[in-house]
Amino acid sequence: MTNQQKNDFTSWYIDTIKKADLMDYTPVRGCIAFKPDGYEIWEHIQAEMDKRFKETGHRNAYFPMLIPESFFEKEKDHIEGFSPELPWVTEAAGEKLEERLALRPTSETMIGHLYSDWIKSYRDLPVLINQWANVFRWEKKTLPFIRTSEFLWQEGHTAHVDEVEARAETMQMLNIYKEVVEELLAIPVYDGQKTPSERFAGAIDTYSIEAMMKDGKAVQAGTSHYLGTKFAQAFDIKYLTKENKHEFVHTTSWGTSTRLIGSVIMTHGDEQGLVLPPRVAPTQVVLIPVGPWKKNPEIMEKLDEIFAQLKAQGIRVRLDDSDQSPGYKFNEWELKGVPVRVELGPRDLENNQALIKARDEDEKEAVELSALVARIEEELVTMQTRLLEKARAFREKHSHIHVDSLVQLKDHIADSTESGEIPGWILAGWCGVDACEEQVKEETKFTTRNIPFNPPAEKSSCINCGNEAKHTVWFGRAY
Amino acid sequence: MTNQQKNDFTSWYIDTIKKADLMDYTPVRGCIAFKPDGYEIWEHIQAEMDKRFKETGHRNAYFPMLIPESFFEKEKDHIEGFSPELPWVTEAAGEKLEERLALRPTSETMIGHLYSDWIKSYRDLPVLINQWANVFRWEKKTLPFIRTSEFLWQEGHTAHVDEVEARAETMQMLNIYKEVVEELLAIPVYDGQKTPSERFAGAIDTYSIEAMMKDGKAVQAGTSHYLGTKFAQAFDIKYLTKENKHEFVHTTSWGTSTRLIGSVIMTHGDEQGLVLPPRVAPTQVVLIPVGPWKKNPEIMEKLDEIFAQLKAQGIRVRLDDSDQSPGYKFNEWELKGVPVRVELGPRDLENNQALIKARDEDEKEAVELSALVARIEEELVTMQTRLLEKARAFREKHSHIHVDSLVQLKDHIADSTESGEIPGWILAGWCGVDACEEQVKEETKFTTRNIPFNPPAEKSSCINCGNEAKHTVWFGRAY
Ligand SMILES: [Zn+2]
Ligand SMILES: [Zn+2]
Repeated sequence: MTNQQKNDFTSWYIDTIKKADLMDYTPVRGCIAFKPDGYEIWEHIQAEMDKRFKETGHRNAYFPMLIPESFFEKEKDHIEGFSPELPWVTEAAGEKLEERLALRPTSETMIGHLYSDWIKSYRDLPVLINQWANVFRWEKKTLPFIRTSEFLWQEGHTAHVDEVEARAETMQMLNIYKEVVEELLAIPVYDGQKTPSERFAGAIDTYSIEAMMKDGKAVQAGTSHYLGTKFAQAFDIKYLTKENKHEFVHTTSWGTSTRLIGSVIMTHGDEQGLVLPPRVAPTQVVLIPVGPWKKNPEIMEKLDEIFAQLKAQGIRVRLDDSDQSPGYKFNEWELKGVPVRVELGPRDLENNQALIKARDEDEKEAVELSALVARIEEELVTMQTRLLEKARAFREKHSHIHVDSLVQLKDHIADSTESGEIPGWILAGWCGVDACEEQVKEETKFTTRNIPFNPPAEKSSCINCGNEAKHTVWFGRAY
Repeated sequence: MTNQQKNDFTSWYIDTIKKADLMDYTPVRGCIAFKPDGYEIWEHIQAEMDKRFKETGHRNAYFPMLIPESFFEKEKDHIEGFSPELPWVTEAAGEKLEERLALRPTSETMIGHLYSDWIKSYRDLPVLINQWANVFRWEKKTLPFIRTSEFLWQEGHTAHVDEVEARAETMQMLNIYKEVVEELLAIPVYDGQKTPSERFAGAIDTYSIEAMMKDGKAVQAGTSHYLGTKFAQAFDIKYLTKENKHEFVHTTSWGTSTRLIGSVIMTHGDEQGLVLPPRVAPTQVVLIPVGPWKKNPEIMEKLDEIFAQLKAQGIRVRLDDSDQSPGYKFNEWELKGVPVRVELGPRDLENNQALIKARDEDEKEAVELSALVARIEEELVTMQTRLLEKARAFREKHSHIHVDSLVQLKDHIADSTESGEIPGWILAGWCGVDACEEQVKEETKFTTRNIPFNPPAEKSSCINCGNEAKHTVWFGRAY
């Protein structure tokens, strides 16, 4: 790698995703092309999320991408939040449009408009719909996968008879996000509630899962919103109750996006490039002949056999029989983050063994050929867990729970910078006043990540004003 | 159904898709919302197509939706074909853009631009990429699923060392389309080549599969294009050959879209509404208790048991235990096109049997309970084949191979109209001159569908000028 992770994280990140061939820039500002190895990570995320959504009774649908300007104006907070970032279609087929059409940043308004027609009675509820789609937010500063003008996501939109049911849905989906991100992507997250200033535009309550990247910055990896009756009122979504009364529905929305691709890279990558958890790796195992293998045709015969066996087990395997040197190949496949490498040379064959190496470990291991496939399968499972544990240990190390005032926070940041360490996150008390949050942000760039459901400690005084803390909050710099 | 299929096909179609709850109109011109039962048909199509694409070595990627105006101008035929239908983004985040950005109608230009960078050497070839995406064509006249301003599709884009390989790819993908459309959607198609006037804008050769709807009109159900080096030249996509020479790549593109949802409805639907082939039906089997079932709890017990057994077999089953009358339910589920209905009442239970009815057949069948699950599984397979056979018989009946002049065609159309029949398609000779095609279109609205690879007869003279026929062509009215 040209750029070092520990010296210049952003350059390291760009280097890593380019060398792993995950994406390319395009001439359209902030819009990237997802190349096959990048897109396939998303496909594995999609498959797992989609399965869980359907298991919990949701169905997919598709709504128009273009949203009339007048729709946004119906929910005041919503338009305030999103209007600065909207691209607009103003002409089509050679004619100027009468009303501008926004490229959707999210679909609450269009869906609200339609739900008002689809929902008539309690019998129509709950409505449990998800959409896989592209969305647009014309951001000033972009970073591939993490923040792009166009990105891919899923957005769930549900409607319920009352607050209790809607809040249960909000929590259920946040919990699914937590499970998928931890189990599939091996990224540990804190689940909790966003502070009012960080809420989704138009939500009553926003909940998030927050992940710590290797530079200590936070990624909001998924959000789930309880929208109350705000959109129901804006779009007149009412239903007839069993008691023959007209009531507003309570709605939720929840989303995860292709920024998860960026998160997995920033969580597991190292100085040798990408490190992918086995469950989302496009290539899980690469087989490489070593030594004078061209003179020993039995090497390739054996590798072909292993290839077929792994493939039969449903493992995504590649065999690299190109003319490059083994060293070159090792480097190439490490850059791509392939979880397990298998080496086989004439001497190995003589000893009836092969060498395997996990991408995240230093040592190679000699494995008897008869046990090889089983050992690889086992290692893919072990490595998946190990990456999660490593990321968890990293996060614990950089989660600071004894920083209790703004002065201490500034000292902590200064000390970290001086010693070449990352400042990470801090857990601190907050009185609940916006101004205190704002003050911390202005002076340190640390923002509230969320109010965790299960904080490692309880804080009693506000980090800024010292008054009684209403909440114990994670603070950190965020993407 | 309010509107009859045989009297007013379009109104019948709209009625059918509304009553089956497949879609809804939206305030954005020509843009529909795909409701869950409509979208799920697409999901089944996607799953099967995607599997076949991957089996043949293709991988998915994702490219930006916005395409700079200057890109279109690089390929003359392409911009001529698409510019009349483009919507444009002209402002974003409060600022006017320096260059207009089109909402993609298809992605040859963006992908061509990127491939010129991705492809350097013969070692990089072939590039076999597919994209699942939304696309825009601002059509004047729209019809849900069949022709909408925004639709969903897949577009494959491949690059090859030479014409032979690229043409083989073009044919391979057309063949996959034919297989999926016939096997999954039970829609028989004619595969063949488009005439030059009907070619994709920018293609050397366009091939299509053409399906006959129940009103005799044709739907182009999938297309595959050999693009030669036209886009390679426009975007400078060159590679270094083994002999160290710079050559243009040969590219292909191929696509199928959500218009397949419309096609399946127009192929199989009847006066009672939707008829869905089992393989794409969101609900494959519906269980309905009949007679005084509420007084006989063992009815619901038995149905719950059958439900669980079908579910365990991977069958998409619903149990309708609502308070509506059996007659009402029968009608509702027929409107939705559910392939198999199972009725169980006290008398059936006494006789240790249930009644099953296939959506496309008139008679009910009594089946012993112990054999029920197996019989249903069998019927789902049988019905799938039967629908294809019925559609094939319908197509044969309305394919006319003895209409050999424009006068005869006009007579045939007039006779059909008079006798309340549909004119269907005709197989006729064509001399290869655009003007002859144009003349037929102007006088009859019949256009060339394709030059079938396996025509049921060979024609010797042009339908318009009577000169020697170069091609035997399907003519018909088209969507
Ligand atoms: Zn305070
Ligand atoms: Zn002619």
